[in-house]
Amino acid sequence: MIIDCHGHYTTAPKGLQAFRDAQLAELKNPPATRTKGSVNITDDEIRTSLEGAQLKLQRERGSDVTIFSPRASAMAHHIGDATTSLHWTEHCNDLIYRVVSLYPQNFVGVCQLPQTPGVSPANCVAELERCVKDFGFIGCNLNPDPSGGYWREPPLIDKWWYPVYEKLVEYDIPAMVHVSSCSNPVFHFTGAHYINADTTAFMQLIQGDLFKDFPTLKIVIPHGGGAVPYHWGRYKGIATREKFPPIEQNVMTNVWFDTCVYHQPGIDLLTGVISPDHILFASEMLGAVRGDNPDGGFSWDDTRRYVEAAKLTDDDRAQVFELNARRVYPRLDARLKAQGR
Amino acid sequence: MIIDCHGHYTTAPKGLQAFRDAQLAELKNPPATRTKGSVNITDDEIRTSLEGAQLKLQRERGSDVTIFSPRASAMAHHIGDATTSLHWTEHCNDLIYRVVSLYPQNFVGVCQLPQTPGVSPANCVAELERCVKDFGFIGCNLNPDPSGGYWREPPLIDKWWYPVYEKLVEYDIPAMVHVSSCSNPVFHFTGAHYINADTTAFMQLIQGDLFKDFPTLKIVIPHGGGAVPYHWGRYKGIATREKFPPIEQNVMTNVWFDTCVYHQPGIDLLTGVISPDHILFASEMLGAVRGDNPDGGFSWDDTRRYVEAAKLTDDDRAQVFELNARRVYPRLDARLKAQGR
Repeated sequence: MIIDCHGHYTTAPKGLQAFRDAQLAELKNPPATRTKGSVNITDDEIRTSLEGAQLKLQRERGSDVTIFSPRASAMAHHIGDATTSLHWTEHCNDLIYRVVSLYPQNFVGVCQLPQTPGVSPANCVAELERCVKDFGFIGCNLNPDPSGGYWREPPLIDKWWYPVYEKLVEYDIPAMVHVSSCSNPVFHFTGAHYINADTTAFMQLIQGDLFKDFPTLKIVIPHGGGAVPYHWGRYKGIATREKFPPIEQNVMTNVWFDTCVYHQPGIDLLTGVISPDHILFASEMLGAVRGDNPDGGFSWDDTRRYVEAAKLTDDDRAQVFELNARRVYPRLDARLKAQGR
Repeated sequence: MIIDCHGHYTTAPKGLQAFRDAQLAELKNPPATRTKGSVNITDDEIRTSLEGAQLKLQRERGSDVTIFSPRASAMAHHIGDATTSLHWTEHCNDLIYRVVSLYPQNFVGVCQLPQTPGVSPANCVAELERCVKDFGFIGCNLNPDPSGGYWREPPLIDKWWYPVYEKLVEYDIPAMVHVSSCSNPVFHFTGAHYINADTTAFMQLIQGDLFKDFPTLKIVIPHGGGAVPYHWGRYKGIATREKFPPIEQNVMTNVWFDTCVYHQPGIDLLTGVISPDHILFASEMLGAVRGDNPDGGFSWDDTRRYVEAAKLTDDDRAQVFELNARRVYPRLDARLKAQGR
């Protein structure tokens, strides 16, 4: 079985954007009472949006189930206020629930959180509960920079974030660290901000001892761990020189990297440097790098090919493709078992 | 010959810090007229600071000449104002000039610039001229984020930066993109901010066409190019999808990466993915990752070992160790030739 741990609903029907446009228009002249409102999308529209895209690629590439979350760039926690973020987040998560209800064999849900710059993440707990209890979601995306490129929140090791971690631990679900679109013009969102955030989060974890406080918390760092595996010697050296505990004992116990690295040398480095127990298969589809590689004869984000070609034992490859994900996402494992898979 | 293109004077005698401490103390109660003041360091102190450190490592590791610049983390352009930055920068560059005068076989100078957040880089031109004309320096370090982790300047492709580029082109000297210490607590300086800045700068270059305006401008991106070589497929894919010109034709014509990547798999990826014509040998010594690797039996930053072990032809290895640097830094080449090297 092949579990893709990182897919986004980037092909959502236009009714979602229509809601968002109306929501942002209303912000300019807000009514006394702001309500969640409604998103007008039919089940057929959802089917159409997926059949020619994510489902087609699942079939073509031979992955079995995708851990599916709202479009990351659209989270845009920096736009509007906490009410804006909450209503938008609820709709985005509602829509993921409709997807996983229509295609329970193909998708399992991960939620975005109603984060807002400067507002305690404690206000995300209710939506996290709703998504886990009512929708059966198995994880969440946690944005370390809800400011959208201005980086004003405390580091992830700060107690600021503990209300979310407490709930994640209670439910035994992981967080994927994932920023959103970027309003700071220096950072291209998928080319710089995403990768920088992954690198930044990992270094923050080195600097603290978050997993002493939360021994069962699990963090997924996407996009192959940002720059980290490429600079593994740098991180090991900095940890030694600055007298942080060894990375393997203080960080990598609770952290996994995904395989969203879109060329063979990158996947070879990732699988050569990081223990295969801590790598999760993923493609980000449909993500930043969809589309054919004109030189390669196949799509950049067809990451299964790279993982198949990497020097891994069959056992290690099974860990990367399936078994690690079952361990990191216990609620996914339970779901699959209930389906006889 | 082995040219190390990236070394910092991180071991400067304590007289430099004493000046800085006094300068920052004065900021709290500034006099009507602020003067450059003086740094009290003897030639013997300079010799001592280098003999047991950079010079010892040059001898032990067998590098011949180091392109040497002030301590990057200490540039701290975000502290004080433009006058603070100018006086501090002048002293730091003066000290590098004393080093290269004492050891003309071992070091050639690169300057820091008197940048200040929000102040046009045009104010750096006079110091750049002084360092090239009076000191014979062969390049500069350019900080894309003088705010120290808050990223408020325009991207490097913006005309904001053109006054510096015009002077670099006039002198035919390259800029190394290099941030400094970080006042934003989310970013560890050497573990996140440095690497993020490299990645960010490269993506900015993809987004623009800076080298159409400056066909002879040369940019060095240190620390192995940040995350870029590891995510080469991502950058190629984003360029294709977002209809930017091909990276090879629009960016890599004028950009070089250094070898400050502190483990063999990282150097193998770098030398396998990036054309050896665009890789410059470097160790950052003494930089972020000095000190022995307890598992490896040698120092993390002894990058010569990794480059020696990389799968490169002898010709390509000579490019990386020496010949590329002579092309990227024509004033270095002239200096070496004048020395009969």
